[in-house]
Amino acid sequence: MAKPQSSYLVCLAFSLVFNLLLISKLYVGREWELSWSRRAAEEAEYVAAISCSGHGRAYLDGLTLDGKEPVCECNSCYGGPHCSEFLTGCAANADSGDPYFLEPFWMQHASKSALVVAGWHRMSYTFADQSYISAELERHIRKLHAIVGNAVTGGKYIVFGAGSTQLLNAAVHALSSHNSSSSSSPASVVASIPYYNLYQMQTEFFRSTDYVFRGDASLLQNISDATNVIEFVTSPNNPDGQLNKANVQGPNAKAIYDRVYYWPHFTAIPTPANDDIMIFSISKLTGHAGSRFGWAVVKDESVFQKMTMYTLINSMGISRDAQLRALKVLNVVLEGGGKDIFEFGYNTLRKRWEKLSNILSVSNRFSLQKFAPKYCTFFKKTRGPSPAYAWVKCEREEDKDCYAVLQEEANVYGRRGSHFGAEDRFVRLTLLRSQDDFDLLLQRLNQLVLEESHRNAILSTI
Amino acid sequence: MAKPQSSYLVCLAFSLVFNLLLISKLYVGREWELSWSRRAAEEAEYVAAISCSGHGRAYLDGLTLDGKEPVCECNSCYGGPHCSEFLTGCAANADSGDPYFLEPFWMQHASKSALVVAGWHRMSYTFADQSYISAELERHIRKLHAIVGNAVTGGKYIVFGAGSTQLLNAAVHALSSHNSSSSSSPASVVASIPYYNLYQMQTEFFRSTDYVFRGDASLLQNISDATNVIEFVTSPNNPDGQLNKANVQGPNAKAIYDRVYYWPHFTAIPTPANDDIMIFSISKLTGHAGSRFGWAVVKDESVFQKMTMYTLINSMGISRDAQLRALKVLNVVLEGGGKDIFEFGYNTLRKRWEKLSNILSVSNRFSLQKFAPKYCTFFKKTRGPSPAYAWVKCEREEDKDCYAVLQEEANVYGRRGSHFGAEDRFVRLTLLRSQDDFDLLLQRLNQLVLEESHRNAILSTI
Repeated sequence: MAKPQSSYLVCLAFSLVFNLLLISKLYVGREWELSWSRRAAEEAEYVAAISCSGHGRAYLDGLTLDGKEPVCECNSCYGGPHCSEFLTGCAANADSGDPYFLEPFWMQHASKSALVVAGWHRMSYTFADQSYISAELERHIRKLHAIVGNAVTGGKYIVFGAGSTQLLNAAVHALSSHNSSSSSSPASVVASIPYYNLYQMQTEFFRSTDYVFRGDASLLQNISDATNVIEFVTSPNNPDGQLNKANVQGPNAKAIYDRVYYWPHFTAIPTPANDDIMIFSISKLTGHAGSRFGWAVVKDESVFQKMTMYTLINSMGISRDAQLRALKVLNVVLEGGGKDIFEFGYNTLRKRWEKLSNILSVSNRFSLQKFAPKYCTFFKKTRGPSPAYAWVKCEREEDKDCYAVLQEEANVYGRRGSHFGAEDRFVRLTLLRSQDDFDLLLQRLNQLVLEESHRNAILSTI
Repeated sequence: MAKPQSSYLVCLAFSLVFNLLLISKLYVGREWELSWSRRAAEEAEYVAAISCSGHGRAYLDGLTLDGKEPVCECNSCYGGPHCSEFLTGCAANADSGDPYFLEPFWMQHASKSALVVAGWHRMSYTFADQSYISAELERHIRKLHAIVGNAVTGGKYIVFGAGSTQLLNAAVHALSSHNSSSSSSPASVVASIPYYNLYQMQTEFFRSTDYVFRGDASLLQNISDATNVIEFVTSPNNPDGQLNKANVQGPNAKAIYDRVYYWPHFTAIPTPANDDIMIFSISKLTGHAGSRFGWAVVKDESVFQKMTMYTLINSMGISRDAQLRALKVLNVVLEGGGKDIFEFGYNTLRKRWEKLSNILSVSNRFSLQKFAPKYCTFFKKTRGPSPAYAWVKCEREEDKDCYAVLQEEANVYGRRGSHFGAEDRFVRLTLLRSQDDFDLLLQRLNQLVLEESHRNAILSTI
């Protein structure tokens, strides 16, 4: 009888050990048992798990199929229920600045960047201090600038806006509004060609009595000395990536520095910017263009007050949901001193720029803007260019419309030079979109350039 | 040897059954095993569980104590680390329209209204259809109006805005902008007294060449017939809750209907509104003022196009985070045909109005606006008033500044009549804030009225 007894004992021992294991798995070291957030978390993970073949993604608020499952939203030139079909002949999108190049970073940091919003989160118009801005978020922003070394914020004020977009006009308003002298002539708003089109569109659209768009800074000689001049300076510039400085000097000249590209993704950071008005946004920093969150760093208190008033009268401050999202993503950026995201962004854009440059270097028909290598105080090394956009010039005399050349001959669409106040001999190609979009752009340009060399080779033999 | 063996067997049996139980508890019938969303969910539940004694709440983005735990943000007149201390002598806040009265509803519906946002959610500027608005959200909004029966949306366009705030000026812009005739005189913007102050502030602040604020609609006789007139009509009206209609008629008169209070919380719904421009927002519908999300229902296509363009040029559309939040809360509202939230809102405000009316009915010094009971097509019954604000009049000749009377004699602060273009003999008291704020308001008013009766009683005996 000894044998069965000992085998029982062995079984019992195994079973008991197994029990202990199960108990420890169930209860020991287990995390917080979720209650009200579980349903939403499951829903989000379910949607995120929908397969879109790596060429798209499904969203919580996407259109639903039969009122049930959100459908995949595919990258341009991909289709089908799971984005698995390449749409042959589809035009390569190199137009908008949609910053999808950072999407893989956030997918890699899914856990840290996820956000749970309670139904009762921040229902009030104001924060506890009666302000319209999150003090925690402002603290994060100041810390970020200190770590990156791209802007001096000490002793300066911070205004939040619905992306840089709202802040650009808020700044024009603040610099042009008069306390009493309503009889004085409107301020002249200028920018150097090539410039971001929105400056002109906005300034003209709102038809204010306080300001008028006067176009290129070189036309300033026609403006009387007494007129106030407000100059938009984009640095690095959109479209050409140059670290521009204000052209207009003098007692009546004020500059609004659009610094949305002044991050280590896009440029070496030679020194912290210390302009009177500097505008930033998460669109180009973290890639969350859809959140519509930006901020201005402002030196002068009265300009700060006027810009803040603008955002209040315009939209009663910035969505608390956008502020919460910005806080969450900036928190991830700050982890590890910002190295992760800036290295990811820089490496991605650097590679893209190199590939594009290599292809176009074979061609005599197209040229690209030039950059000198620069020392970056953030990366602590001299680094090559990694701009947000390629500013392409068609060099042939007859190629006056470079946009049309690329569209007709390469099936690629960029953004016209005239959109930036420049000649249509130029076209802007974005490097910020998804890898799919960039790969297709590259493939199409490569083909065009190869055909050119091929034709040249044939011509040289006859 | 039989005894130990059978006892081993019993033990083994128990152990195995226990194994099975544990296994079933661990694996069978368990919900989705959470991965990337778990950390965020735990964080949110942890913050939500911070005790603020029912007189405040902690937020994810709240100020943190020692960089660790968010601190409680207390209702007005409560303090201490857990909001447990009543601040005696503190002034009762009856000023802002912060819609905290709906906060308990969302706490009761915590699971359904929770939202998990992935780090890569909607990074693009546009949705898949290249628009700036969520088609799902638009669908929800149309369905909601159909269920509530408060607005005709069929054949009309919908524009999204950063709260009603941004849409009000977008509408003024759209109605006043000329395609070519820039020489024509600016449109006159008017409103009937008492009116929501922002109409005037906004119209004056942006200093457009296209429109000018002309104040009360009764001043219109001074405006030439050729001038375009844009009338703001708030219905129900802020501050007095009346179902206003446009005053100005004629071929050059256009009305912007601010319908943010046209929900069953605040008024009987006699009929679906069918105005050319109607503005709504979630601030007053669901209480999420901080999200800054509103929409306009617009009849005319060109007005719709111009308003949409305004929101694009102004802020490149509305935060996708705000749109996602709005979608989530509207989804909860739609469940069960909207009965839940409207009954909660109506019952809360109805009780508040009755209590306030009862207290002030004892007084000869103060009077309230009057409402007739009305049939509500949504609740399918005749119902008493439940306005968002009490529009209090000081009846005594010497009480010319009703705001000051309440502040000095009752330690209550409302919003001055002059804020609404009316006499300061009027003051607006909000009924929308937290129960704490309302209880304190009631207590203070009760005391003031009792003192009055007491004084009257003494006076009548001498």
